[in-house]
Amino acid sequence: MNNGAIGVFDSGVGGLTTVKELVKLLPNENIVYLGDTARVPYGTKSTDTIAKYARQDIAFLLKRDVKMILVACGTISSAMMHEPIFENVMIPHSGVVLPTAEAACKATKNKKIGVLGTSATVKSQSFANAIKAIDPEIEVTAKACPMFVPLVENGYTDRNCVVTKLIAEEYLDIMKKNDVDTLILGCTHFPHLHDVIQDIMGDGVKLISSGAELAKFAADALKKDNAFCDRQTEGKRELFCTDSVELFTETAATFLGKDNHAQIAKCTLKT
Amino acid sequence: MNNGAIGVFDSGVGGLTTVKELVKLLPNENIVYLGDTARVPYGTKSTDTIAKYARQDIAFLLKRDVKMILVACGTISSAMMHEPIFENVMIPHSGVVLPTAEAACKATKNKKIGVLGTSATVKSQSFANAIKAIDPEIEVTAKACPMFVPLVENGYTDRNCVVTKLIAEEYLDIMKKNDVDTLILGCTHFPHLHDVIQDIMGDGVKLISSGAELAKFAADALKKDNAFCDRQTEGKRELFCTDSVELFTETAATFLGKDNHAQIAKCTLKT
Repeated sequence: MNNGAIGVFDSGVGGLTTVKELVKLLPNENIVYLGDTARVPYGTKSTDTIAKYARQDIAFLLKRDVKMILVACGTISSAMMHEPIFENVMIPHSGVVLPTAEAACKATKNKKIGVLGTSATVKSQSFANAIKAIDPEIEVTAKACPMFVPLVENGYTDRNCVVTKLIAEEYLDIMKKNDVDTLILGCTHFPHLHDVIQDIMGDGVKLISSGAELAKFAADALKKDNAFCDRQTEGKRELFCTDSVELFTETAATFLGKDNHAQIAKCTLKT
Repeated sequence: MNNGAIGVFDSGVGGLTTVKELVKLLPNENIVYLGDTARVPYGTKSTDTIAKYARQDIAFLLKRDVKMILVACGTISSAMMHEPIFENVMIPHSGVVLPTAEAACKATKNKKIGVLGTSATVKSQSFANAIKAIDPEIEVTAKACPMFVPLVENGYTDRNCVVTKLIAEEYLDIMKKNDVDTLILGCTHFPHLHDVIQDIMGDGVKLISSGAELAKFAADALKKDNAFCDRQTEGKRELFCTDSVELFTETAATFLGKDNHAQIAKCTLKT
């Protein structure tokens, strides 16, 4: 048994996709979340800068009695395949790339997987490398979707939204051409566009949410290590952001629902 | 005569609109530009955070022998109307708000001015306050256009782009309803959408570019102070960014043209 919290971080609010799934799977666990909203987004930035920020995010979580750290962000998870960010961190940790690649490899039947991500994620080839390591025969098509994050953050998520449909059609064209049967939503913002993407790709294509896969992976790992908490009541959810609480609260409600019982506070990272 | 450089800064690349205009007006002046690309954008962040970052940007420029500092960013220029960022800075400086408000007040005939800006700029009411201070009878309609920056940065700028037209129509609807005859492009990214905006508003509406107005204001101020350089050859343009040079170079070419003769280097800000 381990009553420490599950630490989760992201460049902003996208990682709340993972928190939402964790709350569903492990309602009694404490969760500490950090969203670096003062420097969001990371997905348009360089690997060096992303890695530097991620180390500062991890240092913050390590001070808060966490038993595990989850990188609930496709961009940071991809950067860490090239630049170490967990040097000397002795507690279990995982990004989204490996759990998501495993789920996609299990799901594909025709061995054709697509990956949607930020520019930084696609440039890193992180998902493609992870998939090829599992099964070199799988064909991977990756596409950067830089407009998806602003579309989600500004509420253009309805399946009938013409703007979103036009942009999604542009991005997904290559996925249809390459006949993928499994499509990784490699950025934790993208599940908000699930319906639009599913409509364009058709019901035959399986969408894999990277944030949700990470939560499942974490639950399995805690079970294996016998490291669940012994609490019998609902866990505490503490959300920290580096910019204003007011701005964060609005968007957090979109991700977690209005009755999320979370405490939200501003924090300062050591730079 | 003063051979110091003109210092210009912005959260990212938008301020290059001002640099472009300065090069045209004052080709012999040296220019030092800072784009804080490691923390871009500022327009979605809180006033406190914007002001903190701006002070760090200014401290960087002050070390580089500048004779003047221009805040070539609608968001920072708006934040500085509420939070001081130039405490103890003894050289001339200006943001975009006052020069742009003056130009708009001169241009309007029906005393109805519109303002397009980032969320932070519109929330600050900076342009409205500046316009009302000049002429309290002028009606101001302000509209936050959070999708414009990602559209510009991802190249959706063509006047025939359906996505951009749909989003612009949504944002400009209130401007047409309120019959504005003068429209401030209050973010230095927005001139890239000039054609789309002009098409929707019609030729009768005068568009005012905040970045260009700031450059004109600076040229006038240097003339008045007799502070031009005595160089007879083309000035040096040094562009600094806080994230990778590679990422910055691509976008800089969009703003300044491919043959811009600028030197680009990465720098680290003291935080």
